[in-house]
Amino acid sequence: MAKLRFNISISLDGYTAGPEQSKKDPLGVGGEGLHEWVVRLAAWRAPHNLEGGEVNESTGVVEESVTNIGATIMGRNMFGGSPGPWDDRKPWNGWWGKNPPFHHPVFVLTRHPRPRLELEGGTSFTFVTDGIEAALGQARRAARGKDVSLAGGAKAAQQYLNAGLVDEMELHLVPTLLGGGERLFDGVKDLGGLRPVRTIAAADVTHLKFVRGAP
Amino acid sequence: MAKLRFNISISLDGYTAGPEQSKKDPLGVGGEGLHEWVVRLAAWRAPHNLEGGEVNESTGVVEESVTNIGATIMGRNMFGGSPGPWDDRKPWNGWWGKNPPFHHPVFVLTRHPRPRLELEGGTSFTFVTDGIEAALGQARRAARGKDVSLAGGAKAAQQYLNAGLVDEMELHLVPTLLGGGERLFDGVKDLGGLRPVRTIAAADVTHLKFVRGAP
Repeated sequence: MAKLRFNISISLDGYTAGPEQSKKDPLGVGGEGLHEWVVRLAAWRAPHNLEGGEVNESTGVVEESVTNIGATIMGRNMFGGSPGPWDDRKPWNGWWGKNPPFHHPVFVLTRHPRPRLELEGGTSFTFVTDGIEAALGQARRAARGKDVSLAGGAKAAQQYLNAGLVDEMELHLVPTLLGGGERLFDGVKDLGGLRPVRTIAAADVTHLKFVRGAP
Repeated sequence: MAKLRFNISISLDGYTAGPEQSKKDPLGVGGEGLHEWVVRLAAWRAPHNLEGGEVNESTGVVEESVTNIGATIMGRNMFGGSPGPWDDRKPWNGWWGKNPPFHHPVFVLTRHPRPRLELEGGTSFTFVTDGIEAALGQARRAARGKDVSLAGGAKAAQQYLNAGLVDEMELHLVPTLLGGGERLFDGVKDLGGLRPVRTIAAADVTHLKFVRGAP
Protein backbone atom coordinates (compact mmCIF):
# COMPACT_ATOMS: atom_id res chain seq x y z
CA MET A 1 0.00 0.00 0.00
CA ALA A 2 1.05 3.56 -0.58
CA LYS A 3 3.24 4.85 2.24
CA LEU A 4 2.71 7.95 4.37
CA ARG A 5 6.07 9.73 4.29
CA PHE A 6 6.96 12.63 6.53
CA ASN A 7 9.99 14.85 6.37
CA ILE A 8 10.61 18.01 8.33
CA SER A 9 13.38 20.31 9.56
CA ILE A 10 13.93 20.62 13.30
CA SER A 11 16.31 22.56 15.51
CA LEU A 12 18.58 21.07 18.19
CA ASP A 13 15.99 22.07 20.77
CA GLY A 14 13.26 20.27 18.84
CA TYR A 15 11.35 23.12 17.21
CA THR A 16 9.89 23.01 13.69
CA ALA A 17 8.92 26.67 13.77
CA GLY A 18 10.07 29.62 15.83
CA PRO A 19 8.01 31.70 18.25
CA GLU A 20 5.39 34.29 17.22
CA GLN A 21 4.21 32.84 13.89
CA SER A 22 2.46 35.47 11.77
CA LYS A 23 1.83 36.39 8.14
CA LYS A 24 5.08 38.31 8.30
CA ASP A 25 6.95 35.38 9.90
CA PRO A 26 5.05 32.27 8.76
CA LEU A 27 7.75 30.05 10.24
CA GLY A 28 8.04 32.11 13.41
CA VAL A 29 10.91 34.36 14.45
CA GLY A 30 14.13 32.68 13.31
CA GLY A 31 12.22 29.79 11.77
CA GLU A 32 13.45 30.44 8.25
CA GLY A 33 16.91 29.49 9.50
CA LEU A 34 15.66 25.89 9.62
CA HIS A 35 15.31 25.91 5.83
CA GLU A 36 18.51 27.61 4.70
CA TRP A 37 20.11 24.21 4.06
CA VAL A 38 17.45 23.32 1.48
CA VAL A 39 16.96 26.73 -0.13
CA ARG A 40 20.61 26.79 -1.16
CA LEU A 41 20.30 23.46 -2.99
CA ALA A 42 19.88 23.30 -6.76
CA ALA A 43 17.56 20.32 -6.14
CA TRP A 44 15.14 22.63 -4.31
CA ARG A 45 15.64 25.77 -6.40
CA ALA A 46 14.87 24.22 -9.79
CA PRO A 47 11.28 23.12 -8.95
CA HIS A 48 10.72 26.55 -7.38
CA ASN A 49 11.89 28.25 -10.60
CA LEU A 50 15.04 29.64 -9.00
CA GLU A 51 18.41 29.51 -10.67
CA GLY A 52 21.68 28.15 -9.38
CA GLY A 53 22.31 26.41 -6.12
CA GLU A 54 24.59 23.82 -4.59
CA VAL A 55 24.94 20.09 -4.99
CA ASN A 56 26.05 18.44 -1.75
CA GLU A 57 25.33 15.49 0.58
CA SER A 58 21.74 16.69 1.02
CA THR A 59 20.92 16.64 -2.70
CA GLY A 60 19.98 12.97 -2.83
CA VAL A 61 17.88 13.30 0.28
CA VAL A 62 15.83 16.14 -1.22
CA GLU A 63 15.43 14.35 -4.55
CA GLU A 64 14.27 11.21 -2.75
CA SER A 65 11.75 13.18 -0.67
CA VAL A 66 9.84 14.41 -3.73
CA THR A 67 10.04 11.18 -5.73
CA ASN A 68 6.92 9.03 -6.10
CA ILE A 69 4.64 11.40 -4.18
CA GLY A 70 1.06 11.51 -5.47
CA ALA A 71 -0.65 13.59 -2.78
CA THR A 72 0.18 15.78 0.23
CA ILE A 73 -1.45 16.25 3.64
CA MET A 74 -0.90 19.36 5.75
CA GLY A 75 -2.35 21.04 8.81
CA ARG A 76 -4.43 24.21 8.66
CA ASN A 77 -1.69 26.24 10.30
CA MET A 78 0.76 25.27 7.56
CA PHE A 79 -1.76 26.19 4.83
CA GLY A 80 -2.07 29.51 6.65
CA GLY A 81 -4.60 32.29 6.75
CA SER A 82 -6.30 33.74 9.81
CA PRO A 83 -7.40 31.11 12.34
CA GLY A 84 -11.06 30.16 12.61
CA PRO A 85 -13.69 29.96 9.86
CA TRP A 86 -12.59 30.86 6.33
CA ASP A 87 -13.26 34.47 5.34
CA ASP A 88 -15.03 34.49 1.94
CA ARG A 89 -14.40 38.21 1.50
CA LYS A 90 -10.62 37.82 1.70
CA PRO A 91 -9.97 34.30 0.48
CA TRP A 92 -6.63 32.82 1.56
CA ASN A 93 -5.27 30.44 -1.06
CA GLY A 94 -2.03 29.38 0.62
CA TRP A 95 1.51 30.72 0.65
CA TRP A 96 2.52 29.41 -2.74
CA GLY A 97 0.96 31.70 -5.36
CA LYS A 98 -1.11 30.72 -8.40
CA ASN A 99 1.06 27.74 -9.37
CA PRO A 100 2.15 25.98 -6.17
CA PRO A 101 5.08 23.56 -6.30
CA PHE A 102 3.02 20.50 -5.33
CA HIS A 103 1.45 19.65 -8.74
CA HIS A 104 -0.84 17.08 -7.13
CA PRO A 105 -3.84 17.03 -4.76
CA VAL A 106 -3.23 18.50 -1.30
CA PHE A 107 -5.47 17.72 1.69
CA VAL A 108 -5.70 20.34 4.44
CA LEU A 109 -6.81 19.27 7.95
CA THR A 110 -9.26 21.83 9.31
CA ARG A 111 -12.40 22.07 11.42
CA HIS A 112 -13.90 24.63 9.06
CA PRO A 113 -15.55 23.45 5.82
CA ARG A 114 -14.59 25.09 2.55
CA PRO A 115 -15.04 24.11 -1.11
CA ARG A 116 -12.17 22.46 -2.92
CA LEU A 117 -9.71 24.96 -4.41
CA GLU A 118 -8.15 24.32 -7.84
CA LEU A 119 -4.96 26.20 -8.70
CA GLU A 120 -2.61 26.00 -11.68
CA GLY A 121 -0.17 23.24 -12.50
CA GLY A 122 -2.23 20.35 -11.14
CA THR A 123 -2.34 21.51 -7.51
CA SER A 124 -5.69 21.38 -5.71
CA PHE A 125 -6.50 21.94 -2.04
CA THR A 126 -9.22 19.81 -0.46
CA PHE A 127 -10.32 20.84 3.04
CA VAL A 128 -10.95 17.78 5.21
CA THR A 129 -13.04 18.27 8.33
CA ASP A 130 -13.49 14.67 9.49
CA GLY A 131 -10.07 13.87 10.88
CA ILE A 132 -6.64 12.50 10.08
CA GLU A 133 -7.72 9.00 9.01
CA ALA A 134 -10.29 10.37 6.59
CA ALA A 135 -7.68 12.72 5.14
CA LEU A 136 -5.21 9.87 4.75
CA GLY A 137 -7.83 7.72 3.02
CA GLN A 138 -8.69 10.51 0.58
CA ALA A 139 -5.02 11.28 -0.05
CA ARG A 140 -4.23 7.60 -0.70
CA ARG A 141 -7.01 7.36 -3.29
CA ALA A 142 -5.91 10.61 -4.92
CA ALA A 143 -2.28 9.45 -5.04
CA ARG A 144 -3.24 6.53 -7.34
CA GLY A 145 -0.63 4.11 -6.08
CA LYS A 146 2.07 6.65 -5.32
CA ASP A 147 3.00 7.63 -1.76
CA VAL A 148 1.48 10.39 0.36
CA SER A 149 3.62 13.18 1.82
CA LEU A 150 2.84 14.55 5.27
CA ALA A 151 4.11 18.11 5.00
CA GLY A 152 3.49 19.23 8.60
CA GLY A 153 3.20 21.25 10.71
CA ALA A 154 3.91 20.01 14.19
CA LYS A 155 0.31 19.46 15.31
CA ALA A 156 -0.62 17.44 12.23
CA ALA A 157 2.55 15.40 12.58
CA GLN A 158 1.88 14.69 16.27
CA GLN A 159 -1.56 13.31 15.43
CA TYR A 160 -0.27 10.99 12.70
CA LEU A 161 2.71 9.87 14.82
CA ASN A 162 0.54 9.10 17.84
CA ALA A 163 -1.87 7.15 15.62
CA GLY A 164 1.04 5.06 14.30
CA LEU A 165 0.19 6.02 10.71
CA VAL A 166 3.59 7.33 9.58
CA ASP A 167 5.51 4.77 7.48
CA GLU A 168 8.67 6.79 6.90
CA MET A 169 10.04 9.83 8.70
CA GLU A 170 13.09 11.89 7.84
CA LEU A 171 14.24 14.57 10.25
CA HIS A 172 16.51 17.30 8.95
CA LEU A 173 18.34 18.30 12.11
CA VAL A 174 19.68 21.85 11.89
CA PRO A 175 22.46 22.74 14.36
CA THR A 176 20.80 25.80 15.82
CA LEU A 177 18.53 26.74 18.72
CA LEU A 178 15.19 28.54 18.29
CA GLY A 179 14.44 28.87 22.02
CA GLY A 180 10.67 28.80 21.50
CA GLY A 181 7.94 27.99 19.01
CA GLU A 182 6.33 24.71 17.97
CA ARG A 183 7.97 21.53 19.22
CA LEU A 184 7.66 18.64 16.81
CA PHE A 185 7.39 15.90 19.43
CA ASP A 186 5.19 17.63 22.03
CA GLY A 187 2.83 14.99 23.35
CA VAL A 188 4.47 12.18 21.36
CA LYS A 189 5.49 9.51 23.86
CA ASP A 190 7.57 7.26 21.63
CA LEU A 191 8.44 6.59 18.02
CA GLY A 192 6.00 3.70 17.82
CA GLY A 193 7.37 1.26 15.30
CA LEU A 194 9.66 3.79 13.61
CA ARG A 195 13.31 2.76 13.78
CA PRO A 196 16.43 4.57 12.55
CA VAL A 197 17.78 3.23 9.26
CA ARG A 198 20.05 5.90 7.79
CA THR A 199 21.98 9.01 8.80
CA ILE A 200 23.45 11.39 6.25
CA ALA A 201 25.57 14.30 7.48
CA ALA A 202 26.05 17.48 5.49
CA ALA A 203 27.97 20.48 6.83
CA ASP A 204 24.81 22.40 7.72
CA VAL A 205 22.24 19.67 8.44
CA THR A 206 22.00 16.01 9.45
CA HIS A 207 19.35 13.80 7.88
CA LEU A 208 17.94 11.06 10.12
CA LYS A 209 15.69 8.55 8.36
CA PHE A 210 13.27 6.20 10.12
CA VAL A 211 11.00 3.49 8.74
CA ARG A 212 8.18 1.57 10.36
CA GLY A 213 8.49 -2.15 10.94
CA ALA A 214 10.88 -4.81 12.15
CA PRO A 215 14.53 -4.70 11.03
CA MET B 1 44.07 28.47 28.05
CA ALA B 2 42.58 25.18 29.08
CA LYS B 3 39.24 24.58 27.36
CA LEU B 4 35.89 23.80 28.95
CA ARG B 5 34.62 20.77 27.04
CA PHE B 6 31.09 19.46 27.34
CA ASN B 7 29.67 16.26 25.94
CA ILE B 8 26.29 14.77 26.63
CA SER B 9 23.71 12.35 25.24
CA ILE B 10 20.32 13.75 24.23
CA SER B 11 17.14 12.29 22.78
CA LEU B 12 15.39 13.46 19.62
CA ASP B 13 13.02 15.44 21.82
CA GLY B 14 15.94 17.14 23.57
CA TYR B 15 16.06 15.37 26.93
CA THR B 16 19.27 14.42 28.76
CA ALA B 17 17.40 12.46 31.42
CA GLY B 18 13.97 10.88 31.54
CA PRO B 19 11.10 11.76 33.87
CA GLU B 20 10.95 10.84 37.58
CA GLN B 21 14.66 10.79 38.46
CA SER B 22 15.31 8.83 41.68
CA LYS B 23 17.98 6.72 43.37
CA LYS B 24 16.43 3.75 41.57
CA ASP B 25 16.38 5.59 38.21
CA PRO B 26 19.20 8.17 38.45
CA LEU B 27 18.76 8.99 34.76
CA GLY B 28 14.96 9.02 34.99
CA VAL B 29 12.56 6.50 33.51
CA GLY B 30 13.98 5.38 30.17
CA GLY B 31 17.04 7.60 30.61
CA GLU B 32 19.52 4.73 30.54
CA GLY B 33 18.50 4.19 26.91
CA LEU B 34 20.45 7.37 26.13
CA HIS B 35 23.67 5.63 27.14
CA GLU B 36 23.33 2.21 25.51
CA TRP B 37 25.44 3.37 22.56
CA VAL B 38 28.42 4.08 24.85
CA VAL B 39 28.04 1.18 27.29
CA ARG B 40 28.43 -1.29 24.46
CA LEU B 41 31.74 0.22 23.36
CA ALA B 42 35.06 -1.34 24.34
CA ALA B 43 36.39 2.22 24.68
CA TRP B 44 33.94 2.84 27.54
CA ARG B 45 33.98 -0.64 29.10
CA ALA B 46 37.74 -0.88 29.62
CA PRO B 47 38.08 2.18 31.91
CA HIS B 48 35.02 0.93 33.81
CA ASN B 49 36.68 -2.47 34.31
CA LEU B 50 34.21 -4.26 32.07
CA GLU B 51 35.26 -6.81 29.46
CA GLY B 52 34.50 -6.94 25.78
CA GLY B 53 32.58 -4.42 23.76
CA GLU B 54 32.36 -3.08 20.24
CA VAL B 55 34.60 -0.93 18.13
CA ASN B 56 32.60 1.27 15.74
CA GLU B 57 32.26 4.85 14.42
CA SER B 58 31.74 6.12 17.98
CA THR B 59 35.00 4.71 19.34
CA GLY B 60 37.16 7.64 18.30
CA VAL B 61 34.62 10.12 19.66
CA VAL B 62 34.66 8.48 23.10
CA GLU B 63 38.45 8.23 23.16
CA GLU B 64 38.72 11.90 22.21
CA SER B 65 36.26 12.93 24.93
CA VAL B 66 38.44 11.54 27.74
CA THR B 67 41.79 12.63 26.32
CA ASN B 68 43.64 15.56 27.93
CA ILE B 69 41.05 16.11 30.69
CA GLY B 70 42.54 17.27 34.01
CA ALA B 71 39.39 18.10 36.00
CA THR B 72 35.62 17.68 35.84
CA ILE B 73 32.70 19.94 36.81
CA MET B 74 29.22 18.58 37.53
CA GLY B 75 25.95 19.73 39.03
CA ARG B 76 24.69 18.58 42.40
CA ASN B 77 21.89 16.60 40.82
CA MET B 78 24.40 14.59 38.80
CA PHE B 79 26.53 13.91 41.88
CA GLY B 80 23.32 12.71 43.50
CA GLY B 81 22.10 12.18 47.03
CA SER B 82 18.98 13.63 48.60
CA PRO B 83 18.37 17.29 47.74
CA GLY B 84 19.10 19.97 50.28
CA PRO B 85 21.87 20.12 52.91
CA TRP B 86 24.23 17.14 53.11
CA ASP B 87 23.24 14.52 55.68
CA ASP B 88 26.32 13.74 57.83
CA ARG B 89 24.68 10.63 59.25
CA LYS B 90 24.23 9.00 55.82
CA PRO B 91 27.02 10.47 53.72
CA TRP B 92 26.44 10.27 49.96
CA ASN B 93 29.73 9.85 48.10
CA GLY B 94 28.46 9.72 44.51
CA TRP B 95 27.26 6.96 42.21
CA TRP B 96 30.68 5.60 41.33
CA GLY B 97 31.92 3.54 44.32
CA LYS B 98 35.25 3.78 46.13
CA ASN B 99 37.33 4.18 42.98
CA PRO B 100 35.41 6.42 40.56
CA PRO B 101 36.42 6.47 36.90
CA PHE B 102 37.47 10.15 36.89
CA HIS B 103 40.99 9.82 38.43
CA HIS B 104 41.27 13.59 38.74
CA PRO B 105 39.68 16.42 40.78
CA VAL B 106 35.91 16.83 40.37
CA PHE B 107 34.08 20.06 41.29
CA VAL B 108 30.43 19.78 42.31
CA LEU B 109 28.18 22.84 42.04
CA THR B 110 26.01 23.08 45.16
CA ARG B 111 24.50 25.63 47.51
CA HIS B 112 25.36 23.46 50.53
CA PRO B 113 28.92 23.52 51.92
CA ARG B 114 30.67 20.23 52.56
CA PRO B 115 34.32 19.29 53.12
CA ARG B 116 36.35 18.00 50.21
CA LEU B 117 35.98 14.25 49.69
CA GLU B 118 39.00 12.14 48.69
CA LEU B 119 38.35 8.75 47.12
CA GLU B 120 40.67 6.14 45.61
CA GLY B 121 42.48 6.34 42.31
CA GLY B 122 43.12 10.07 42.32
CA THR B 123 39.46 11.18 42.32
CA SER B 124 38.43 13.94 44.73
CA PHE B 125 35.15 15.83 45.01
CA THR B 126 35.27 19.52 45.92
CA PHE B 127 31.93 21.16 46.72
CA VAL B 128 31.79 24.67 45.29
CA THR B 129 29.18 27.03 46.71
CA ASP B 130 30.13 30.32 45.05
CA GLY B 131 28.95 29.76 41.50
CA ILE B 132 29.90 28.48 38.07
CA GLU B 133 32.77 30.90 37.40
CA ALA B 134 34.44 30.10 40.72
CA ALA B 135 34.08 26.38 39.98
CA LEU B 136 35.59 26.84 36.54
CA GLY B 137 38.51 28.81 37.98
CA GLN B 138 39.21 26.12 40.58
CA ALA B 139 38.87 23.36 37.99
CA ARG B 140 41.23 25.12 35.57
CA ARG B 141 43.88 25.44 38.27
CA ALA B 142 43.44 21.81 39.32
CA ALA B 143 43.67 20.64 35.68
CA ARG B 144 47.26 21.98 35.47
CA GLY B 145 47.13 22.92 31.82
CA LYS B 146 44.83 20.13 30.67
CA ASP B 147 41.20 20.77 29.72
CA VAL B 148 38.15 20.76 32.00
CA SER B 149 35.20 18.46 31.33
CA LEU B 150 31.67 19.67 32.03
CA ALA B 151 29.88 16.42 32.83
CA GLY B 152 26.33 17.78 33.23
CA GLY B 153 23.54 17.62 34.08
CA ALA B 154 21.19 19.87 32.22
CA LYS B 155 20.97 22.71 34.75
CA ALA B 156 24.74 23.02 35.09
CA ALA B 157 25.11 22.93 31.32
CA GLN B 158 22.47 25.64 30.83
CA GLN B 159 24.33 27.95 33.19
CA TYR B 160 27.67 27.49 31.44
CA LEU B 161 26.11 27.76 27.96
CA ASN B 162 24.24 30.95 28.83
CA ALA B 163 27.43 32.44 30.28
CA GLY B 164 29.27 31.68 27.03
CA LEU B 165 31.91 29.67 28.91
CA VAL B 166 31.73 26.41 26.93
CA ASP B 167 34.60 26.09 24.42
CA GLU B 168 33.62 22.75 22.88
CA MET B 169 30.34 20.86 22.91
CA GLU B 170 29.60 17.41 21.54
CA LEU B 171 26.02 16.19 21.48
CA HIS B 172 25.39 12.47 21.19
CA LEU B 173 21.97 12.41 19.57
CA VAL B 174 20.15 9.17 20.26
CA PRO B 175 17.25 8.36 17.89
CA THR B 176 14.63 7.86 20.58
CA LEU B 177 11.98 9.87 22.43
CA LEU B 178 11.82 10.17 26.22
CA GLY B 179 8.61 12.21 26.33
CA GLY B 180 9.57 13.99 29.54
CA GLY B 181 12.42 14.72 31.94
CA GLU B 182 15.21 17.27 31.83
CA ARG B 183 15.63 19.25 28.62
CA LEU B 184 19.21 20.17 27.85
CA PHE B 185 18.46 23.51 26.21
CA ASP B 186 15.66 24.79 28.45
CA GLY B 187 16.23 28.51 28.85
CA VAL B 188 19.17 28.57 26.42
CA LYS B 189 18.33 31.13 23.75
CA ASP B 190 21.12 30.43 21.28
CA LEU B 191 24.41 28.62 20.88
CA GLY B 192 26.39 31.78 21.52
CA GLY B 193 29.62 31.47 19.60
CA LEU B 194 29.43 27.68 19.25
CA ARG B 195 29.36 26.56 15.63
CA PRO B 196 29.07 23.06 14.15
CA VAL B 197 32.36 21.60 12.96
CA ARG B 198 31.91 17.83 12.67
CA THR B 199 29.18 15.20 12.43
CA ILE B 200 29.89 11.50 12.88
CA ALA B 201 27.06 9.02 12.33
CA ALA B 202 27.02 5.58 13.91
CA ALA B 203 24.07 3.21 13.54
CA ASP B 204 22.72 3.99 17.02
CA VAL B 205 23.86 7.57 17.66
CA THR B 206 24.95 10.72 15.83
CA HIS B 207 27.77 12.84 17.24
CA LEU B 208 27.51 16.59 16.61
CA LYS B 209 30.58 18.60 17.57
CA PHE B 210 30.64 22.38 18.08
CA VAL B 211 33.51 24.73 18.90
CA ARG B 212 33.53 28.33 20.00
CA GLY B 213 34.95 31.01 17.78
CA ALA B 214 35.05 32.19 14.19
CA PRO B 215 35.52 29.63 11.37
